[in-house]
This record gives sequence, structure tokens and C-alpha cells, in this order.
Amino acid sequence: MVNLGPAPLSEDDLRFIDEIAALLAPRGMPPSAGRVYGYLLLNEAPVSLEQIATQLDMSKGGAWNAAKTLVHCGQIRRYGERGSKRGLFGPSENYAAGMLEQSALWGAMGALMEDSAATAGSGVVAGRLKEMARFYLTMRDTIEAGIRQLNAGRARKTG
Amino acid sequence: MVNLGPAPLSEDDLRFIDEIAALLAPRGMPPSAGRVYGYLLLNEAPVSLEQIATQLDMSKGGAWNAAKTLVHCGQIRRYGERGSKRGLFGPSENYAAGMLEQSALWGAMGALMEDSAATAGSGVVAGRLKEMARFYLTMRDTIEAGIRQLNAGRARKTG
Repeated sequence: MVNLGPAPLSEDDLRFIDEIAALLAPRGMPPSAGRVYGYLLLNEAPVSLEQIATQLDMSKGGAWNAAKTLVHCGQIRRYGERGSKRGLFGPSENYAAGMLEQSALWGAMGALMEDSAATAGSGVVAGRLKEMARFYLTMRDTIEAGIRQLNAGRARKTG
Repeated sequence: MVNLGPAPLSEDDLRFIDEIAALLAPRGMPPSAGRVYGYLLLNEAPVSLEQIATQLDMSKGGAWNAAKTLVHCGQIRRYGERGSKRGLFGPSENYAAGMLEQSALWGAMGALMEDSAATAGSGVVAGRLKEMARFYLTMRDTIEAGIRQLNAGRARKTG
């Protein structure tokens, strides 16, 4: 019996995969990682590195590097295959992982500006840094509160 | 008379500049652009490319590329020097430029997921994309509302 493997990706699937990668690239996501992320979002169940590599026409090493980046950012996770060393990969259930990373960055920017405002020699510079710190720290809090609310709504719906 | 130029940067200034660059680098900001941004935040008034290059120990071409990137992102702006072709650069008064860029990305991600949910062959995949679209679009709206509120507070304070 011949193992035909998964059906080739449709035009719609390929477009979705390319668009996800294009949107995330300017924010520092390597294009291959963006494509793997898009592909995993389109699969019902977690898939193997072999399948990722075949479907996206990548080397297995390239697929592995892309998966490592995405696991590190919290966008995907590894699912064990019972009794096997092979890993399966699928999107993380935590849709807010990237958003929380962004809000952590804004929090760090705000804290840095607040600290530096306290030691700035110029009143103009201190005022600017204090005002920027207020923007960054407020937006950090706003995002975190928004995510808590979204996750609470989600728990109610699925719980 | 000897033109001594600006005083060399203090240890505190250099640390601030390096930390800004380090925070922004993983989000796709080239390190030299991050350093120029940090430096401009510490100056009361807009400065020339020559001064940026001297103070940060960069080539003038490198300073120009970094400034172009930052103007493009809305983080800094060019101020004309009256009657001169030389440009002066300083931070944008719009502290929310980077945040609005982020919310636009989340809006685009949400729209893409919403569109793709409508044509997804699998109910599981469609449900996931719809739920992710809800997260991204809600956070886009949350950020935009937060920025409007921050800017309104600022107009009241300074107006």
C-alpha cells in the first residue's frame, strides 16, 4: 500500500500562509517561522516536522529551526506522541502569547524611561521621558486588562 | 577659536541608549536605529546627522540610514534648519506611533483570520480562526481607545 501523505495545500491555504508570514516579518519573525505558524493554524491536529517540511517545501532542519523559534515565542507548542520520540507541533491555545510579549516590552520601555527621567540633567528631557513612561505603562496595563477580559469570556463560553 | 562640539555622552546616557536598542531589536529594529532613537530622546532640541554620527561613533551614512528607518516608523521626525539644506532630527511628539503600528498589525491579523475562517474546510480550524480574530480585533480596538484617552489627557494638560 502506498502512503499518499497529506493532500497538497490549496491556493487559499498557501495565500493565508504567505500573508501571515508577510504580516509578522517586519516585527522580527523569520519568514520560514511565519510560514510554519500559518500552516499549523490550518491543521486540525498537531503535525510532525516531516509533514511540515514536505508541505512547505522546506528542509527538515529548516522546519525544526522555525518550530523552535515559534515554541520560544509561545505561538506554538510541542505535543508528545505517546511512546515515541517524535514531536508533534500545533498552535498554542494561548492566543494572547504574542500580545503579552508586546505588553511586556512596553512595560520594560516605560520602566526604563521612568528611571532615566529621574536622573536626566535637563528638565525638558526629564519631562519627555516621564510623559513617554506614562504612555508605555498605561498601555501595558490596558493590554493586560484587555487580555484578562478576553480570556475570561473564553473560559465562560467553553467551560 | 576651537569648536569643541557637544560634550561626550555620560555613562548613564550610553546605558540608556544601549538598553533602548536592546529592547527594540527583537521587534525588528536595527541596532543602529535603536541607538539613534535613544540618543535623540536624550537631546533637548533636534540635532544634525553629523552630531549623531560623532556622538554615537557611527559613519554619517550609517546615521542617515538609521534616521530614515526611524522617520519611516514615525518614531522621529526631520526638522528643517531655516535657510539650510541640512536636516535636524528629533523624537516625534506622537509617542503612540509605535503603538498604533502594533494595533494596525493586530487589526490586519484579525481581518485575515476572519476572512480565512469563512472559507476554512474544517470546523475546528474555522472555530480557531474565528476566536483568534476576536482576540486580535478586540485588542486593536482596545489599544486605539487607550491611545485616544492618553492623547486627550495630554491635550488637557498642555493645552
